[in-house]
Amino acid sequence: MRLLDTINHPEELKSLNTNQLTQLANEIREELVATVSKTGGHLAPNLGVVELTLALHQVFNTPRDQIVWDVGHQSYVHKLLTGRRTQFATLRQLGGLSGFPRRTESVHDSFGTGHSSTSISAALGLALARDLKHEHYHVIAVIGDGALTGGMAFEALNHAGHLRTNLIVVLNDNEMSIANNVGALSRYLNRIRTEPVYFRSKEEVESLIRRIPKIGNRVLSAVDRVKDAVKYLVVPGVLFEELGFTYLGPIDGHNLPAVRDILKNAKQVEGPVLVHLLTKKGKGYGPAERNPDKFHGIGPFSIADGKPRADGNIPSYTQIFGQTLVKQAEKDQRILAITAAMPGGTGLEEFARRFPERFFDVGIAEQHAVTLAAGLACQGFRPVVAIYSTFLQRAYDQVLHDVCLQNLPVVFAIDRAGLVGEDGATHQGIFDIAFLRHIPNLTIMAPKDENELQHCLETARGINGPVAVRYPRGAGRGIQLDSEFQSFTIGQAEVIRDGQDLAIIAVGPMVYTAVNAAMILEEQGRSVAVINARFVKPLDEALILHYALKTQRLITLEEHCLAGGFGSAVAELINRQNGTWKPEHSPELLHMGIPDEFVEHGSPDSLREIYGLTPSGIVKAINERWPERRRLRAAGAVRS
Amino acid sequence: MRLLDTINHPEELKSLNTNQLTQLANEIREELVATVSKTGGHLAPNLGVVELTLALHQVFNTPRDQIVWDVGHQSYVHKLLTGRRTQFATLRQLGGLSGFPRRTESVHDSFGTGHSSTSISAALGLALARDLKHEHYHVIAVIGDGALTGGMAFEALNHAGHLRTNLIVVLNDNEMSIANNVGALSRYLNRIRTEPVYFRSKEEVESLIRRIPKIGNRVLSAVDRVKDAVKYLVVPGVLFEELGFTYLGPIDGHNLPAVRDILKNAKQVEGPVLVHLLTKKGKGYGPAERNPDKFHGIGPFSIADGKPRADGNIPSYTQIFGQTLVKQAEKDQRILAITAAMPGGTGLEEFARRFPERFFDVGIAEQHAVTLAAGLACQGFRPVVAIYSTFLQRAYDQVLHDVCLQNLPVVFAIDRAGLVGEDGATHQGIFDIAFLRHIPNLTIMAPKDENELQHCLETARGINGPVAVRYPRGAGRGIQLDSEFQSFTIGQAEVIRDGQDLAIIAVGPMVYTAVNAAMILEEQGRSVAVINARFVKPLDEALILHYALKTQRLITLEEHCLAGGFGSAVAELINRQNGTWKPEHSPELLHMGIPDEFVEHGSPDSLREIYGLTPSGIVKAINERWPERRRLRAAGAVRS
Repeated sequence: MRLLDTINHPEELKSLNTNQLTQLANEIREELVATVSKTGGHLAPNLGVVELTLALHQVFNTPRDQIVWDVGHQSYVHKLLTGRRTQFATLRQLGGLSGFPRRTESVHDSFGTGHSSTSISAALGLALARDLKHEHYHVIAVIGDGALTGGMAFEALNHAGHLRTNLIVVLNDNEMSIANNVGALSRYLNRIRTEPVYFRSKEEVESLIRRIPKIGNRVLSAVDRVKDAVKYLVVPGVLFEELGFTYLGPIDGHNLPAVRDILKNAKQVEGPVLVHLLTKKGKGYGPAERNPDKFHGIGPFSIADGKPRADGNIPSYTQIFGQTLVKQAEKDQRILAITAAMPGGTGLEEFARRFPERFFDVGIAEQHAVTLAAGLACQGFRPVVAIYSTFLQRAYDQVLHDVCLQNLPVVFAIDRAGLVGEDGATHQGIFDIAFLRHIPNLTIMAPKDENELQHCLETARGINGPVAVRYPRGAGRGIQLDSEFQSFTIGQAEVIRDGQDLAIIAVGPMVYTAVNAAMILEEQGRSVAVINARFVKPLDEALILHYALKTQRLITLEEHCLAGGFGSAVAELINRQNGTWKPEHSPELLHMGIPDEFVEHGSPDSLREIYGLTPSGIVKAINERWPERRRLRAAGAVRS
Repeated sequence: MRLLDTINHPEELKSLNTNQLTQLANEIREELVATVSKTGGHLAPNLGVVELTLALHQVFNTPRDQIVWDVGHQSYVHKLLTGRRTQFATLRQLGGLSGFPRRTESVHDSFGTGHSSTSISAALGLALARDLKHEHYHVIAVIGDGALTGGMAFEALNHAGHLRTNLIVVLNDNEMSIANNVGALSRYLNRIRTEPVYFRSKEEVESLIRRIPKIGNRVLSAVDRVKDAVKYLVVPGVLFEELGFTYLGPIDGHNLPAVRDILKNAKQVEGPVLVHLLTKKGKGYGPAERNPDKFHGIGPFSIADGKPRADGNIPSYTQIFGQTLVKQAEKDQRILAITAAMPGGTGLEEFARRFPERFFDVGIAEQHAVTLAAGLACQGFRPVVAIYSTFLQRAYDQVLHDVCLQNLPVVFAIDRAGLVGEDGATHQGIFDIAFLRHIPNLTIMAPKDENELQHCLETARGINGPVAVRYPRGAGRGIQLDSEFQSFTIGQAEVIRDGQDLAIIAVGPMVYTAVNAAMILEEQGRSVAVINARFVKPLDEALILHYALKTQRLITLEEHCLAGGFGSAVAELINRQNGTWKPEHSPELLHMGIPDEFVEHGSPDSLREIYGLTPSGIVKAINERWPERRRLRAAGAVRS
């Protein structure tokens, strides 16, 4: 029997000896590789925190002590050790364990995460709550070096350093965020890493100095300035110390006794303390150690060689985006590409190789990415910010103020728009239309397939103002790509098929779903038009109104929340036009999309089933809403 | 004739001698005080940057060189010196000069600002664009110490320090942001300020060290480590240097020759450089020097004593909010208050005095403020984040993920919701409903007046989940306040007056406007119901549907953008219910609010006139839309 199978509560780790812990670490790594090879998931970061997680649960007592996992994709080991071992095979599956900490899943999950750089803020909140209640427990934020470049982590460090409450920040420095880390902070951390002076806390340094014969106590009693300078000679964490933190480290994060010791030290420190650990993503599994980048959000893979099981031959939207941008950049010097630490995920690797000087990876810093783009656009460039729908949420104000208010030609290439699946509620791209479409000056497009994605990007290039192009995660439809790019007429929708009784206006790849639904409905005796909206903003008002009058029954269809979404825009249009027809000829609208709830993890297809965003789901909704085959038409439909 | 009246282009500053510049500085201060005493505006920060702005325009050449003013409320002097002197009296008035830099206003305004902490990102974008085009000019970001606590400023510093392109960041350290600055960074800057070693660049330090006989060149040729430590002994800006910036300063920002010299030095530095100036907000005008906080966004005032001209006796919504929260906090230990550097603006000063340990000013750090609140709420507290509508835009992702996804009881007290007026496009609170109402779990309220604001806050206290309460800038209606707080039934609207022909559903104080419109319409022979929505989410579906059936003509009215706003929510509701009635009995909807454009500066009343959000505007819109007095009703309105 595995030792791991005996651990039902982190308390049970406390009695294990070093040999047992080493065995346990090995078993955990095997379990991680075995499960994630089947379920997919964030393997590399979890392999990197096995010892850290064991040490945390040995030194601290959850759920009394509170651990906040930044981003949270590295919480699998924590889940294994906190009573969720037997459910681990359900990871990221519909109804199974979430791939991120969830307060509703376990009392050991102190704070739900998913996006980067929130942990110090949340942990500081937990710590201040503790102080206000005069309680005594430890609060630990575990944050990666990549997440530390996100501005709100700095906001929180700054506030924590000011308040000086007890708070432990574990900097899990794995020498890279998802891509190679960038930024001055990274260089700074790198310098710390390469220094020979390891594991010296301020106290140790002071004690060392006291032993130097000629200086000794005299230095320590001198002005703070000199002490600080001496400290700077020996202690590497001056940046954090300047912000008010006690700095401990750096130490080898895979040396379990050392990690345990430093965490025990951290427990004793008054005020905020930063513990700097050096870890290796993918540790213990060759393919992941060699390509940690690929083992982030990977699908099922073969354990033997780490090769994805079902890579498929159909290029993804992401790939088509990347390849289109390269082609555009070859001809148009104004095109630049910007990513916030996701060059691979957003398909920009080839662009970066081809045009290194026109490519900017700003680190995990979505706000800066957008405003940087605005600055570049002021000088005549056409920056393309490639970003996931959910991460663009971080830069809403910058999109609104810095880009759209100034009507600057920045293109937002919004990847992972719609249901993304297994990463769950924090990663679904189901809000972008709602948080973007009320922003003046912004054009919003959604291609129905990967071929149209090319043309949308080309259209965007020709627009002298901000443009958002949203497209989904995963494979396209495998269709032939036009070799020449086209530019669409702004605000022009596409009639896919005509019909008399109903008109479905669909956004993005939902167009294909609509066509399939239309064919079933046709067999049932209804004549159904399908329109590819193509533009979420501006709407093709004339065409929509034409079908509103003609069919008097419009269905809007989007892989997006209903509130404030595309359907809502069509409803606003219809209501603006109400005076054009007699009340009795007003069209009826049926909005299909995602209701007012967060969407949990599960495969995109299983989620589409749940929300009826399938051909049969659409047919069912239409038949329920309109049992009669067609609307009875009164004479003289149009007023005046 | 004033010297100021001869300056039509910044080029003309270059030939002035020191005496003339001193005279000019005095004239500018007189002009600032004279104009802002009439127009209102951000006086104190502009008085603090007179010498800095003069020096910038002497040393650099706009529009070739690019100056980005962070926040931008300190750009008045810049406007006076860049050809906008004769329009200065129109500052912040409808059709007049904006109170912030605007690219459309002048070629000397390189980048439009309004919100904090964007300048370094924008300036870096301008600098990278310059490098890509192999051009040579200077890019300068002017940022206050308060704005530096905003996370995206750090994101940009980090990126700039990494890239090492030429970029000048002027830290305008005025010892306070709008309120007293908080945070470790502030303490750090304070230490720099109080150090005796002024105005020593790294080069000077190195040259000084070389002259020390026993150390001399040996130190400089030693390992970097030692050099860094020595530098740390002398140069105070180690935090910035660690991030890759050359640090110059600090110097007295009111000593014009010194500022000019340091800027000239900065021009010569390769790579990013930070120039640290110490200035005094309100400099040169006693009342503003003594109360710089009050001279931020002040209305017209008396020059003699600085007293506001029209303070009015009617308490503002802000005051009622503050006073309500104090009363709630007296009885409910769980209530905490959080502000992002606006304790005065959000009405929390009394709360801070009464409950210092339950009050948190996190600095300009909206993202951190919201997630900190989430952390506190996890432990049973009821944090109230008091924030302006426009600033909440910065924390959209945190509201969505950290608070609402976890269904935590955080209250967002959204001040300045609706048209705020003179501060213009960057400060109008016209997007909050659109960016909030699609977020699951969130309850959104809008009180019709200050008395109802009390009850909304009390209602919010009783809701075990996230709540947003939006209320406008400025005075309430001066009505009697109930001494006992009430709790409203969640999602229950209020019928203000019944009617048969039309129903106006209004949000917030628009309810009163609707009542006035209804009275005019009544005289014209229409019977008009007025409903106070009170809840934007959840809607009072039953009541709205009741009036939809009864009048078949609904008007939604909101001081908010139409796209995705309250009206759009009502439209979605109506469309969900379409099956309940025969198509010919579907209600007609008229949505009133702000169309798809940014709203410029001007008094709120003048803006309401423009957008028809006045009783007569409403009457006009209704009469145009429905010339017939009432809708002809077919028999059997309700299906099944």
